[in-house]
Amino acid sequence: MVHTGACIANLLGQGGSRKYHLTWNWLRYFKNDRDRRDLITCGSAAGVAAAFRAPVGGVLFALEEAASWWRSALLWRTFFTTAVVAVVLRALIEFCRSGKCGLFGQGGLIMFDLSSTIPTYTAQDVVAIIVLGIIGGVFGGLFNFLLDRILRAYSIINERGPPFKILLTITISIITSACSYGLPWLAPCTPCPVDAPEECPTIGRSGNFKNFQCPPGHYNGLASLFFNTNDDAIRNLFSSGTEKEFHMSTLFVFFTAIYCLGLVTYGIAVPSGLFIPVILAGATYGRIVGTLLGPISDLDPGLFALLGAASFLGGTMRMTVSVCVILLELTNDLHMLPLVMLVLLISKTIADSFNKGVYDQIVVMKGLPFMEAHAEPFMRHLVAGDVVSGPLISFSGVEKVGNIVHALRITGHNGFPVVDEPPVSEAPELVGLVLRSHLLVLLKGKNFMKEKVKTSGSFVLRRFGAFEFAKPGSGKGLKIEDLDFTDDELEMYVDLHPITNTSPYTVVETMSLAKAAVLFRALGLRHLLVVPKTPGRPPIVGILTRHDFMHEHIHGLFPNLGKSH
Amino acid sequence: MVHTGACIANLLGQGGSRKYHLTWNWLRYFKNDRDRRDLITCGSAAGVAAAFRAPVGGVLFALEEAASWWRSALLWRTFFTTAVVAVVLRALIEFCRSGKCGLFGQGGLIMFDLSSTIPTYTAQDVVAIIVLGIIGGVFGGLFNFLLDRILRAYSIINERGPPFKILLTITISIITSACSYGLPWLAPCTPCPVDAPEECPTIGRSGNFKNFQCPPGHYNGLASLFFNTNDDAIRNLFSSGTEKEFHMSTLFVFFTAIYCLGLVTYGIAVPSGLFIPVILAGATYGRIVGTLLGPISDLDPGLFALLGAASFLGGTMRMTVSVCVILLELTNDLHMLPLVMLVLLISKTIADSFNKGVYDQIVVMKGLPFMEAHAEPFMRHLVAGDVVSGPLISFSGVEKVGNIVHALRITGHNGFPVVDEPPVSEAPELVGLVLRSHLLVLLKGKNFMKEKVKTSGSFVLRRFGAFEFAKPGSGKGLKIEDLDFTDDELEMYVDLHPITNTSPYTVVETMSLAKAAVLFRALGLRHLLVVPKTPGRPPIVGILTRHDFMHEHIHGLFPNLGKSH
Repeated sequence: MVHTGACIANLLGQGGSRKYHLTWNWLRYFKNDRDRRDLITCGSAAGVAAAFRAPVGGVLFALEEAASWWRSALLWRTFFTTAVVAVVLRALIEFCRSGKCGLFGQGGLIMFDLSSTIPTYTAQDVVAIIVLGIIGGVFGGLFNFLLDRILRAYSIINERGPPFKILLTITISIITSACSYGLPWLAPCTPCPVDAPEECPTIGRSGNFKNFQCPPGHYNGLASLFFNTNDDAIRNLFSSGTEKEFHMSTLFVFFTAIYCLGLVTYGIAVPSGLFIPVILAGATYGRIVGTLLGPISDLDPGLFALLGAASFLGGTMRMTVSVCVILLELTNDLHMLPLVMLVLLISKTIADSFNKGVYDQIVVMKGLPFMEAHAEPFMRHLVAGDVVSGPLISFSGVEKVGNIVHALRITGHNGFPVVDEPPVSEAPELVGLVLRSHLLVLLKGKNFMKEKVKTSGSFVLRRFGAFEFAKPGSGKGLKIEDLDFTDDELEMYVDLHPITNTSPYTVVETMSLAKAAVLFRALGLRHLLVVPKTPGRPPIVGILTRHDFMHEHIHGLFPNLGKSH
Repeated sequence: MVHTGACIANLLGQGGSRKYHLTWNWLRYFKNDRDRRDLITCGSAAGVAAAFRAPVGGVLFALEEAASWWRSALLWRTFFTTAVVAVVLRALIEFCRSGKCGLFGQGGLIMFDLSSTIPTYTAQDVVAIIVLGIIGGVFGGLFNFLLDRILRAYSIINERGPPFKILLTITISIITSACSYGLPWLAPCTPCPVDAPEECPTIGRSGNFKNFQCPPGHYNGLASLFFNTNDDAIRNLFSSGTEKEFHMSTLFVFFTAIYCLGLVTYGIAVPSGLFIPVILAGATYGRIVGTLLGPISDLDPGLFALLGAASFLGGTMRMTVSVCVILLELTNDLHMLPLVMLVLLISKTIADSFNKGVYDQIVVMKGLPFMEAHAEPFMRHLVAGDVVSGPLISFSGVEKVGNIVHALRITGHNGFPVVDEPPVSEAPELVGLVLRSHLLVLLKGKNFMKEKVKTSGSFVLRRFGAFEFAKPGSGKGLKIEDLDFTDDELEMYVDLHPITNTSPYTVVETMSLAKAAVLFRALGLRHLLVVPKTPGRPPIVGILTRHDFMHEHIHGLFPNLGKSH
């Protein structure tokens, strides 16, 4: 759902899909990086809000996990988005309450209502909960570690082609089905409680006590967990006053199965999430601890299940505020807030000492150029001039078409510095930065000159519309291979001044790399020009891109850096 | 409480108070701007968390209102702070439940428990709530407008000296007392409901139905609101199933009184807040609307009171997510979340079209140099070079002591550019930025030289301890007036290289001012060096400080700027 929300937002940000004739003219206002990023953030917030029926949690999820670059305007926009989601969702639930839309109309905005339990706890309970948090953190860290390994293995398999992908998916599906159907046979049958609030055993599609292979009047605990929707299974685990509902062995088997299935399922070629498996495993774990600690603690196993889910979420996702609010919104149980916060604190701290959060791990593994919010410690020992990449390609203010075409063909750089040289200026002088996409639009216009002279720049206004230089949708931009030039054209000149950004952000080459990284990150830049410290040298030393700040790049340049510290 | 939290944090950030011998050595790690700012943010979050018993709301309040500069590490730190607050608060409440600590132990973490009401609403109700939100937004905007006027009047009175301050405070106290005691006489007596859940009438200090001047078996509605703690009054207003408890006239009188008293009380020399008066006024307003709309809407007036409070908070504070979560945590009523969000959206949007949020207004009025998060539109028409302030004072890398002392005496600048000139370097070259506070520490050391030569800088390491250059507590730093120099010393030289920041953030003079403002704001800078675009000129054009980005400064330089657009 989160992904779906972000995808829809990205599609809107690209001005709709031209392929499917889904374009709106007003969407062109989103044709720039910043608005598109904001839109995607709002989309993921809307996704969380809709999936968990937790609007405030959605805002916080977007804040804590999705947005790499936070502005106060964004807070208001995501709030607006999720408020609309909440109102629409509420109206649809109201509309569907009579069962018109399947299971959707069941339950209100609150999925797992726990408000019946009484919240008093003693110091003993708090100690028990701290232990729960610590073990939950360890399990969460272990989950991340194992997931990382499994995803690496999967990526090797997936790279071998679609047949392998499908085979892997089928294998995992068969294992999942076998576990779900096979394991309940091992579970003992339990006689139905005499004062059961619901029908027992149920044979329909949704309900608490599943009959499975058991004789009438008995239910199979493991089947009750496996053969339910995930929502119902979580509700079963969270339910209070049902200390005896599940056997210890049942819970152990279910925990192991869900923990392992959650691990192996995530990386396959099926859109699956991490949130629900982690909540399920955590809730089972919490219930196990709650049952074990029954003699010591007076708290209900249902509450332990909630706290167990919190500890697993804290241990894997490493989100605190948003998990807290999402759990709050899922369970409507404010009294537990201090305990949930305590558990999250502990499990996140414990797990942080092992490895990074699961989303960070996935981002690193997919090789996405995601910059850390903070500068890495080793960056303090380097200066910006140390890491500028490769040979610098720069253009003159009025450049020969052939040079530009050649540069665009041989490199993949997205930005080039423009330097005015005599006779255009008195001394070599940095004009600014020109973007590849703008160069391509300019070249396509073929407004070339025979002489190397600076123009007034007015031809750009005459020749091009206001939105031709706007950012195109992904994969839809011009490519240098699409453009053809005659030999005459390649010998002509084009004035780059009108399309040059004359005040790009710059740093001096002696600036600490950590400081440059903070600047780069805080402003959400794509290019950062490095200028020389002393006058009299060429006016530009190099360009820093996101790639230059990455761990791998820097360690490639300075292999001994990590070792000396 | 918020203020108290921030104050304690600031005190800690200054390394304790030396005056009262409350210093800890480890606190010196906070002796820098960034950590101190973070600490104050955490302090205000803790304040909100403790005041409203709303830990998650505290985090969001800090995020939305207090932090001008957000980092993801800060989120985790504020969460940690408020989690500790929540756990300690819960433990203290548990400890005080038996009444040992006055009113403190009463109630749990949830102050106004509304969870009994049933949340179904129709389209008609939603329309009613939209109207409530619109009017609430208008009232909120009006409140801000009037508060601004009143605070301006008060500041004139307060400037005339302490006697006037005290007189003003006494006057307001008398008016408040007169209203509180006088107005209930006007209210009609109501017979006690036969099925009252509480004692009626109560005469003790806390309770619902106040007897006041009424005959036995009757209660005075207005007295029940005025003579209660604010908590109890709000609980009365929020309470459900009590449609008939308050007369319409009672509510009208109370609303007018509280709205006006809230306005006149805030600016006097007494630590008072805005949150509770606004909630009270809003709740009364909501109850009035709820009672008026009784024939149309089925919703309980108590719910309308909650939504009215939300609309007033949205209209004055202009916070959305944090108000939403604080109300959620105060009332434990998740079912109302979509409606609360809707009301907040509407009232904030309406009020935003009139004026700015109340805290922003107060910041502007107090003349605090607070930079807007976004660049103002007129900044796009200026470049950084346009607004650099006054004559530039720069130092040589090795400067005569007399020049430094003179510069420090005649200006209040906190940062000076350092420029190496021949013969120290080949051409004039910008070395970096030196801070006033560091200069003072260096001058105090009196490590002067007879010759104008560049040193190795090692004397700084020998002479000064690691923390001598750390940021001192406010008002405790060295002053140039404290230092005395002989005429001989003034003729000597000092090497500024060791204390110069050699890679300050710089922008070229032709950069759009809006872009420079974004840089300045995003990185939380204090000084931004402006360098020339073309080579061959002096290597520094000027320094931009926060002051240079302020509206007043820019409009002073370009009086016609606002008019032409």
